[in-house]
Amino acid sequence: MLNFTLIGAGRIGKMHAQNIANHPLCNLSYIYDVDTELASSVAETSKAKIASSAEDAINDKDVDAVFIASATNTHIDYIILAAQAGKAIFCEKPIDLDITKVDYCRKKIKNLNVPIQIGFNRRFDPSHKKLKLSKDEGEIGKLEKIIITSRDPGPPSKEYLKISGGIFRDMAIHDFDFCRFILGNDPIQEISAHASQLFSDDIRDVDDYDTSMVIMKSQSGVLCHINNSRRAIYGYDQRVEIFGSKGMIISDNQSPTSVKKFDKNITNSEDPIYYFFIERYDQAYKNQLENFVNCIIKKKPTSVNFEDGRKALIIADAAYESLAKKQTVKINYS
Amino acid sequence: MLNFTLIGAGRIGKMHAQNIANHPLCNLSYIYDVDTELASSVAETSKAKIASSAEDAINDKDVDAVFIASATNTHIDYIILAAQAGKAIFCEKPIDLDITKVDYCRKKIKNLNVPIQIGFNRRFDPSHKKLKLSKDEGEIGKLEKIIITSRDPGPPSKEYLKISGGIFRDMAIHDFDFCRFILGNDPIQEISAHASQLFSDDIRDVDDYDTSMVIMKSQSGVLCHINNSRRAIYGYDQRVEIFGSKGMIISDNQSPTSVKKFDKNITNSEDPIYYFFIERYDQAYKNQLENFVNCIIKKKPTSVNFEDGRKALIIADAAYESLAKKQTVKINYS
Amino acid sequence: MLNFTLIGAGRIGKMHAQNIANHPLCNLSYIYDVDTELASSVAETSKAKIASSAEDAINDKDVDAVFIASATNTHIDYIILAAQAGKAIFCEKPIDLDITKVDYCRKKIKNLNVPIQIGFNRRFDPSHKKLKLSKDEGEIGKLEKIIITSRDPGPPSKEYLKISGGIFRDMAIHDFDFCRFILGNDPIQEISAHASQLFSDDIRDVDDYDTSMVIMKSQSGVLCHINNSRRAIYGYDQRVEIFGSKGMIISDNQSPTSVKKFDKNITNSEDPIYYFFIERYDQAYKNQLENFVNCIIKKKPTSVNFEDGRKALIIADAAYESLAKKQTVKINYS
Amino acid sequence: MLNFTLIGAGRIGKMHAQNIANHPLCNLSYIYDVDTELASSVAETSKAKIASSAEDAINDKDVDAVFIASATNTHIDYIILAAQAGKAIFCEKPIDLDITKVDYCRKKIKNLNVPIQIGFNRRFDPSHKKLKLSKDEGEIGKLEKIIITSRDPGPPSKEYLKISGGIFRDMAIHDFDFCRFILGNDPIQEISAHASQLFSDDIRDVDDYDTSMVIMKSQSGVLCHINNSRRAIYGYDQRVEIFGSKGMIISDNQSPTSVKKFDKNITNSEDPIYYFFIERYDQAYKNQLENFVNCIIKKKPTSVNFEDGRKALIIADAAYESLAKKQTVKINYS
Repeated sequence: MLNFTLIGAGRIGKMHAQNIANHPLCNLSYIYDVDTELASSVAETSKAKIASSAEDAINDKDVDAVFIASATNTHIDYIILAAQAGKAIFCEKPIDLDITKVDYCRKKIKNLNVPIQIGFNRRFDPSHKKLKLSKDEGEIGKLEKIIITSRDPGPPSKEYLKISGGIFRDMAIHDFDFCRFILGNDPIQEISAHASQLFSDDIRDVDDYDTSMVIMKSQSGVLCHINNSRRAIYGYDQRVEIFGSKGMIISDNQSPTSVKKFDKNITNSEDPIYYFFIERYDQAYKNQLENFVNCIIKKKPTSVNFEDGRKALIIADAAYESLAKKQTVKINYS
Repeated sequence: MLNFTLIGAGRIGKMHAQNIANHPLCNLSYIYDVDTELASSVAETSKAKIASSAEDAINDKDVDAVFIASATNTHIDYIILAAQAGKAIFCEKPIDLDITKVDYCRKKIKNLNVPIQIGFNRRFDPSHKKLKLSKDEGEIGKLEKIIITSRDPGPPSKEYLKISGGIFRDMAIHDFDFCRFILGNDPIQEISAHASQLFSDDIRDVDDYDTSMVIMKSQSGVLCHINNSRRAIYGYDQRVEIFGSKGMIISDNQSPTSVKKFDKNITNSEDPIYYFFIERYDQAYKNQLENFVNCIIKKKPTSVNFEDGRKALIIADAAYESLAKKQTVKINYS
Repeated sequence: MLNFTLIGAGRIGKMHAQNIANHPLCNLSYIYDVDTELASSVAETSKAKIASSAEDAINDKDVDAVFIASATNTHIDYIILAAQAGKAIFCEKPIDLDITKVDYCRKKIKNLNVPIQIGFNRRFDPSHKKLKLSKDEGEIGKLEKIIITSRDPGPPSKEYLKISGGIFRDMAIHDFDFCRFILGNDPIQEISAHASQLFSDDIRDVDDYDTSMVIMKSQSGVLCHINNSRRAIYGYDQRVEIFGSKGMIISDNQSPTSVKKFDKNITNSEDPIYYFFIERYDQAYKNQLENFVNCIIKKKPTSVNFEDGRKALIIADAAYESLAKKQTVKINYS
Repeated sequence: MLNFTLIGAGRIGKMHAQNIANHPLCNLSYIYDVDTELASSVAETSKAKIASSAEDAINDKDVDAVFIASATNTHIDYIILAAQAGKAIFCEKPIDLDITKVDYCRKKIKNLNVPIQIGFNRRFDPSHKKLKLSKDEGEIGKLEKIIITSRDPGPPSKEYLKISGGIFRDMAIHDFDFCRFILGNDPIQEISAHASQLFSDDIRDVDDYDTSMVIMKSQSGVLCHINNSRRAIYGYDQRVEIFGSKGMIISDNQSPTSVKKFDKNITNSEDPIYYFFIERYDQAYKNQLENFVNCIIKKKPTSVNFEDGRKALIIADAAYESLAKKQTVKINYS
């Protein structure tokens, strides 16, 4: 049995709490949130204790792992605390919005040798993962193109937008990581980013973009396209296409049912696709936890590590640089 | 160049006229219709002469082939006339609604040895034909089931319904033939027919059924299901499914475009399927003519012959017998 | 908290054990199986006690509900025992293969007034249920046709075949019930059944059929077609189509992923559909339990009751009568 | 009746010859090709005369329209000749590979006021056109993104590659035009182009790219992505997606049949998509001719004019500039 401390009891923290509580090998010992009421409401359904301080909950000697799902700007402090306490760490994406802080954290935890996994959930989605495995097994031959479409159903609150880090660091970062995951040993070397303010006054007010597109090139010449939107009226649009010398594989959108309707106006029309990440990546979140637990128990390296979190942020930063300079920008991971 | 006489200038006759006129090896010499105005309107666009009598148009020594698309109850007279004149004959389905007359005709033309083809167009549809070819090539292994869905967009006029011969002789006859086509050398041996009067007062008034289902069994035990409706609000529903030891093949509905729409209410919704037979089987009608022309020129037996037309009618008659007796009925082709 | 006794620890019992153990309002108290080793292996993963006798496990005063997933010929004894003990009962389909015994059981439990639910899982599948709800909300207007395709990936063992009751009582019974579910207050009045022995020697040896088709008609004239096969090489084929005055709804097959492949030979090819019932109806089994628990707690009538189980068997019996007589048979539910 | 002179009897010229010959309002008077044998073989099937010189065929006073389907570097000479002769002109894309020559031609024909249409066939494809019309009718609300995938089945010959003008001028030019068509009055203002040499030695040898991606931004901020490949093993991949405030429309790939296959390894697999442009855009080419004929007869402006051809080339040139500078480049249409 692994004992967990969960930091953060918001929407995604709540979901993680349930997954941990339901996992046969996990025990959710503590929940901490600056908002005690939020912590209580989640604790109730999961039988965990409410921690009076994050420090205590992290340092408890019976705790094996710390699950960080709090506000992004608190991630690094908790990572360092947990690493110093020798706990296994799961941290939601992004590690931080500031690469300087990420590098500071990286240095602090370097010699502590704790397992740390970053919350890039797409890697654990059965369909996206199947696509990656098929590629690795050579089904499409030599990879030549990756095309990712990633659109949220609607923009977040203005409060969140202010601290989100912008569309590339907050949203596209998942897609940067997924491109890296598909590419494997073939690093992304350059990026060209483009963005527009088309529909959201809130987003415009905080100097962010609601619509964006990037093209990246890998060392071997693979071209990668990502397009993001902060609003898709038909639901959470999540598609990945890979193309190579022997064929193409698409991981397409998903609907909760396999119902198709036909009437005077519609033909073969399916039920709406999943509305947002909690529904769409339900299984991915469970598989992600399973994988994390498995890595801890079998003392294997985590599948998505600190370096993966850092590199995705470096690409996001490069996207902003490209946007500002209107140039293709080389990516420097060092 | 083959010279054609076309008998019948209604909706389907008009379409045949165009196909014949556009065929590089065909010349449409004469059009005859009891309604001279109708004949004129079709003649205009095809440069054919209007015949003052069917007899003259059939007997003209320069005419090679007679295309019969007139009212069903006139088919047999024209077939006999054309056969006696030694012309190649194409006759729309059904040969006649009365098997006694069909057998009379059969006897009359037996020794005249003219090529005769019946208008079972589905055999020439690229998708349905591909399904049949795939089966013949062994792609689904041993055939075990055939399932045909065939629904018209809406019922015909009451005038037509009165003389249509009923849903099995008028509509399902296409599907009986197509089952026979798929089965090849494995004859249909028995049929169980079921029908309802559910929505059309006109159809009820003429003692016909608007909705029907049959199950047939072949000599080898293949089970065949056909379901027909006289109204499908979403268009002309034409599907064929074959199932066997190694897999399944479906010939699905078709839409004029490959457009898919997504909004708040619809997901992946395609354009409406083709509205009716003229649109849906456009290519089938052209291929059917091509095949007929080819058989004449190369002096090969026609692909859908008089016996095929006769046997489909025998099955339709058996359907009515089954319906009346509420029994499964053996089919007697002799 | 509801305490459960589970009778039967085979493949489906094991799955039920997990669902009960994972349900927040359920406690799996006892597992009983004639095969003690089987019971032990399931008990281990679910923390339930192994019962030394079914009687003790059923009669324990702390037990609220009895879940019967044992061999079909034991169902009735356990139902009576549990009903006499005043427990809520869930019983896998079919109640029994012999309508006389079912009627005996019915009489015995009549005045005991315990909630009893039969395991027709399809009613709880999100897609099939959505289809039913859409119909009830009038989306297809007046219902005219139901078409159900239900094919297993492969035949069961010869041992099982001997005691299965045959394709209609063992397999089609699900589809008979689902037709009844869609039809609601419009009872099925007659049936015509057809079957073949096409591929399985085992099935032929036990005088059963591997391939079947039926047509049923409801009181209002709705035509229903069901086609079953004991082997579909591409997986567990589970499709339902309803057709009416305003349109059509299809509940189509499902694949574990949304991956589509394209290469020289395949176009838009999806991952294989779910292999069999455990995978395909995973969510249905969970929803079914949820529904059963909810009915007990809120003291509501169960959604699929003893009469539903009995009527489905009566239809299956009528199918055999139709098969033997080669006639359409009236169904007598009294 | 319009009399046509066709210049060029290669693969695409041959197809145009058939379409002209089959059109009820067109007469193919002359065919000219530098390769007289080629001209003869096409002339045979279309009953046209073989012209001994392009000049004579263009200047014949009975000729109404000149159809230019010869090598790209001859287009401008023929356009000028035909314009000076006062003929209506249809010219295959691109007008020329050199914008200086295009501008010279533009100046020469400016005051001659002949109708001229450029062969951007995608505008006339029923599916792509439906997508454009749906957008114009407001079905997706305010347009925000265009995503075009355009991949050839295989690279052209090395001979052709040498004179093709490169992937952007030869291939992407169709997609540049189609973006412009969708955008309507919202001009493309900037472009960022990216390309790789991944699989074709021939293409590498001539310093061209086999794989490319661009992002363009319109005046209003619409982001457009195009991705091209010179080889797609599964056929001619032609997809257009538009996304806006009220939804999304996709014009998807097309297969010659609606057959779907299921076996041990494949699920719902369709027949291969159309192999290349002659098959895929068969109807588009016919509609394009229909439109051209209609514009001449009704003396309406052509739908795709010289300026459209010029602007698409300007965008292609900007793509190369962007590629060389690794910058986003402003497009100057003046």
